[in-house]
Amino acid sequence: MSQVHADRRGRLRDRCAAAGSAAALVSRPANVRYLTGASPPGAVLLLGGDADGDALLCPQPPTGDPVEGRVDEALRLTVLPPSGGDPAVTAADLARRADADVLAVEERHLSVARYRAIGSAAPRLRLEDLGTCVEQERLVKDDEEITCLRIAAEITDQALGELLESILVGRTERHLALELERRLVDHGADGPAFPTSVATGPHSGRGRHRPSDRRVEEGDFLSVCLGANYRGYRCEIGRTFVIGTAPADWQIELYDLVFTAQRAAREALAPGTAYRDVDRAARQLLDSAGYGDGLAPSLGHGVGLEIEEDPQLSPSAMGKLDACVPVTVEPGVHLPGRGGVRIDDTLVVRQEADGGPELLTITTKELLAL
Amino acid sequence: MSQVHADRRGRLRDRCAAAGSAAALVSRPANVRYLTGASPPGAVLLLGGDADGDALLCPQPPTGDPVEGRVDEALRLTVLPPSGGDPAVTAADLARRADADVLAVEERHLSVARYRAIGSAAPRLRLEDLGTCVEQERLVKDDEEITCLRIAAEITDQALGELLESILVGRTERHLALELERRLVDHGADGPAFPTSVATGPHSGRGRHRPSDRRVEEGDFLSVCLGANYRGYRCEIGRTFVIGTAPADWQIELYDLVFTAQRAAREALAPGTAYRDVDRAARQLLDSAGYGDGLAPSLGHGVGLEIEEDPQLSPSAMGKLDACVPVTVEPGVHLPGRGGVRIDDTLVVRQEADGGPELLTITTKELLAL
Repeated sequence: MSQVHADRRGRLRDRCAAAGSAAALVSRPANVRYLTGASPPGAVLLLGGDADGDALLCPQPPTGDPVEGRVDEALRLTVLPPSGGDPAVTAADLARRADADVLAVEERHLSVARYRAIGSAAPRLRLEDLGTCVEQERLVKDDEEITCLRIAAEITDQALGELLESILVGRTERHLALELERRLVDHGADGPAFPTSVATGPHSGRGRHRPSDRRVEEGDFLSVCLGANYRGYRCEIGRTFVIGTAPADWQIELYDLVFTAQRAAREALAPGTAYRDVDRAARQLLDSAGYGDGLAPSLGHGVGLEIEEDPQLSPSAMGKLDACVPVTVEPGVHLPGRGGVRIDDTLVVRQEADGGPELLTITTKELLAL
Repeated sequence: MSQVHADRRGRLRDRCAAAGSAAALVSRPANVRYLTGASPPGAVLLLGGDADGDALLCPQPPTGDPVEGRVDEALRLTVLPPSGGDPAVTAADLARRADADVLAVEERHLSVARYRAIGSAAPRLRLEDLGTCVEQERLVKDDEEITCLRIAAEITDQALGELLESILVGRTERHLALELERRLVDHGADGPAFPTSVATGPHSGRGRHRPSDRRVEEGDFLSVCLGANYRGYRCEIGRTFVIGTAPADWQIELYDLVFTAQRAAREALAPGTAYRDVDRAARQLLDSAGYGDGLAPSLGHGVGLEIEEDPQLSPSAMGKLDACVPVTVEPGVHLPGRGGVRIDDTLVVRQEADGGPELLTITTKELLAL
């Protein structure tokens, strides 16, 4: 893996050099991890003019524990002592001593106070904005990254599948959410990719409903949304079930509508398709059925080292899909007081010739009565 | 509760006015919650020249869900539409329209990019640094806050007590950590205050060991560190046990040493005591026993709406304890390859006349053989 990280750093180094920056300081944790394989708390990466000038710096944890995380062998990790101050300032000082005159920093992530501290410590270093250079590099995933996402999805499907075999009526949303998270870890996840959501009855159909003490009842819709974090890579699945022997007519109708909308958006996933067109494929169906007003601003998003990353699949998003970009497709309709339906998958965009979009989360999307 | 929040905002308004700022923008989530009772994701608080000018702004969640959280009735919550941009920029615009000339912002929290966006949107507004004004106000807790911490500690003791009654040998660190977190929620916690740490055998004695697949074995030391989050308030407990019938001599010796050091630091807690003297009370005992080099940089810290807040109890900390400041006292010794002992309590500093330090986490500190 360490060659992969060295290559990524090399590409970023080239982009910075082309933009006139001899050095760059990366502080956003997911970006640090992408470029080094690790992101101990508070770590920053200094990218020098050549690989020898690279340095990963982090503060000694206040607990005194050794720093954990698989760090790239090609890169030294320096743990600063408690009196060592801000690693970003130390990195700027290293850049200055290596005769860099321009340092690109992540203005979207760096605080004003740290920015000022760097400016005071290295006044002759000109600070430029690195912008979203690293985030753009992270958009298209390599095979190793997609393998991690695939494993994350397998774990997620297993955890959900086991839950479906258990008795649900009478149990609270909070219990079910905790049980799903335990099962994710049982099956090898590093943890949940985001807080697991379990929504029953009137809560169902919401995207990030925070589990409450409400118990599952006969006749409820039950929506769950969960995902595993595997080696930092995060996926997402959302399903809606009905509790009891037979769904009501309104439940079948609403389910079919959301299912059809979700399928339309999944089928729209192809290299070259505009982000907004994926959103529109689902949104226009829900809109013409009269549910346009209550829809989420975005019906899907990229996933990877963060659970929500670029691209956003929304009406105002600019840009087009590439192959090997993993995204969620997650339309939902919530009827206040009654509940609703949400169906959410993680897929990888693929060329038609490669079989079209690759569905990672394969749990059935039939309306199961549990 | 809403009067409490209005009073807190009033005090901050007075401090800002005294420093020459007609308005302040608070963006650090724990600070927003302290001043309003809620902190929906991305929310910022604008503190105007008078209470009518206050506004709490947050973006519409991308899932389209309603914004949750108990919001102070005296304060309107504005949810910005997807096209609404950065709430911090909107807040600055509101301040400018209300004729404020100076806006204090949290430079330690605000990113350079947001700072620049505010500057562009309201070029005639002078931006000053609010510094750690709100953090300083949060240091001394009121009765309601201490009640929340007390409940958090009760929940934590209950969860730990139940674990001690179960069979431990053969179970993995990960399972035990998940079970503790489930029990925290069962007993009414909003969630864990921080990732639960369970460390067995050679891992034991570390402060924030990330639970692994190692199983509990006869003869192991077992250290656990957990805490409940109750209404946003977070406490912490750490205990070390021995697995099996009789601890080895080195285990008894090490345990007694850490216990004695922890007691010394607890007994040093009093209004007027320097932070560093609390640290020293424990550190000098561990140091003279030959364990000085491996100690954590800090042997305790404040707790409240964040699990690690001011004050730090460390050799370089400046300042003195006040009454009604809750802190942890958590020395530990880890012997590489063998394991170790860590004992951690949450206490509230009290006057001698009020009975001295109030121990919130009351689980026994005897060396239990489980």
